[in-house]
Amino acid sequence: MPVKRVKVSNNVIRRLPRYLRKLDELTDSGVSRVSSFELGRQLGLTPSQIRQDFSCFGEFGQQGYGYNVPALRSEIASILGMDRGFNAIMIGVGNIGRALTENFNFSEWGFSLIAAFDVRPEIIGTMFHGVPILSMDELARFLDEHRVDAAVLTVPKEAAVPVTEMLTANGIEAIWNFTNVELTAPDSAVLVENVHFSDSLLSLGYYIAERADERAAKAAKAERV
Amino acid sequence: MPVKRVKVSNNVIRRLPRYLRKLDELTDSGVSRVSSFELGRQLGLTPSQIRQDFSCFGEFGQQGYGYNVPALRSEIASILGMDRGFNAIMIGVGNIGRALTENFNFSEWGFSLIAAFDVRPEIIGTMFHGVPILSMDELARFLDEHRVDAAVLTVPKEAAVPVTEMLTANGIEAIWNFTNVELTAPDSAVLVENVHFSDSLLSLGYYIAERADERAAKAAKAERV
Repeated sequence: MPVKRVKVSNNVIRRLPRYLRKLDELTDSGVSRVSSFELGRQLGLTPSQIRQDFSCFGEFGQQGYGYNVPALRSEIASILGMDRGFNAIMIGVGNIGRALTENFNFSEWGFSLIAAFDVRPEIIGTMFHGVPILSMDELARFLDEHRVDAAVLTVPKEAAVPVTEMLTANGIEAIWNFTNVELTAPDSAVLVENVHFSDSLLSLGYYIAERADERAAKAAKAERV
Repeated sequence: MPVKRVKVSNNVIRRLPRYLRKLDELTDSGVSRVSSFELGRQLGLTPSQIRQDFSCFGEFGQQGYGYNVPALRSEIASILGMDRGFNAIMIGVGNIGRALTENFNFSEWGFSLIAAFDVRPEIIGTMFHGVPILSMDELARFLDEHRVDAAVLTVPKEAAVPVTEMLTANGIEAIWNFTNVELTAPDSAVLVENVHFSDSLLSLGYYIAERADERAAKAAKAERV
């Protein structure tokens, strides 16, 4: 079911999966109603921020009554397209591709991983955790015969750009990019979602450094006393 | 070298790695000076946002003259602690652990991966891409004998919580968490950086759904004409 579309800021969209995770957690703990205050406290956001985020998509809560957890969860899932039955393919069945196929539950998030593609003859024609591994030579025909909403790009760095060109030339419009290679010009029509492990590690490094500095400052102060 | 510490918002910290990547890209393209306007255009941020972000850490640019790319890059690297020589260990050498060890250049981001730990006898005592794989039984002693700034948690879901308890009981204060399991109470002193693949995929799903809806709306409109 299409939801009402207004232009929503990227920051709001990025928060939606966090809301979803938190609502799933609350459900698991048996909580069925939550105030914007409590939700905010648990997520490190202000209640007004939360009300404002949800107001982008309509009215979910009731003043003084809070949010119904399963109803809100289902609204957010729908906004995220989790009920659309997206089809995805994977390109590159190396370590990261295997890790995703084995451990990442695509269907939980609204995606079916319907096929994977690789260049190594020894794995082509086999199944891996229920996913058939096909030859890259079969890719164009496969895309011709199947509706594919997104490609998971888990190829080695040097293959990232040529494979992307091949995918887009064959109608792929959305790429989940694990290669750490920038794939598109800012104005390209292809949706690219980059997974940058380094961004995450660098943020952690910031906090480690910050803590070390705070301790050093405290120790220096104690010494001066 | 400790940098001046003011409390900086989480959003600013999250943007620093993006600035770093963009500055590296500019360096690779031979660009040595960039205006906040141009940097903003390429990153989808306003020039004033960028100036405001950098002002948290001191003055880097010169009015009407722009930023010196290598100098700014080096400042941001230092803010992120990339020059601190952090030591990291990895817990769990499955697919995702192997993918990181093989393909992720820890040292590029200021971390040395000095050891990995696993429970499987067949890999204990071996080296993987220059990293010794030790037994979990050796973990406590190892932590006693080495300065370890962060643990990369790449164990199966069910091991996430017990392993975290073991790590923190042995002095680990920062965890890079790939398990998709929530590890800490909001007020814990342990720094946890979560890599949530699902957040990333869900954002992509949002944009795919949005595009589909826009097309459907356009088609419906064309039909009515």
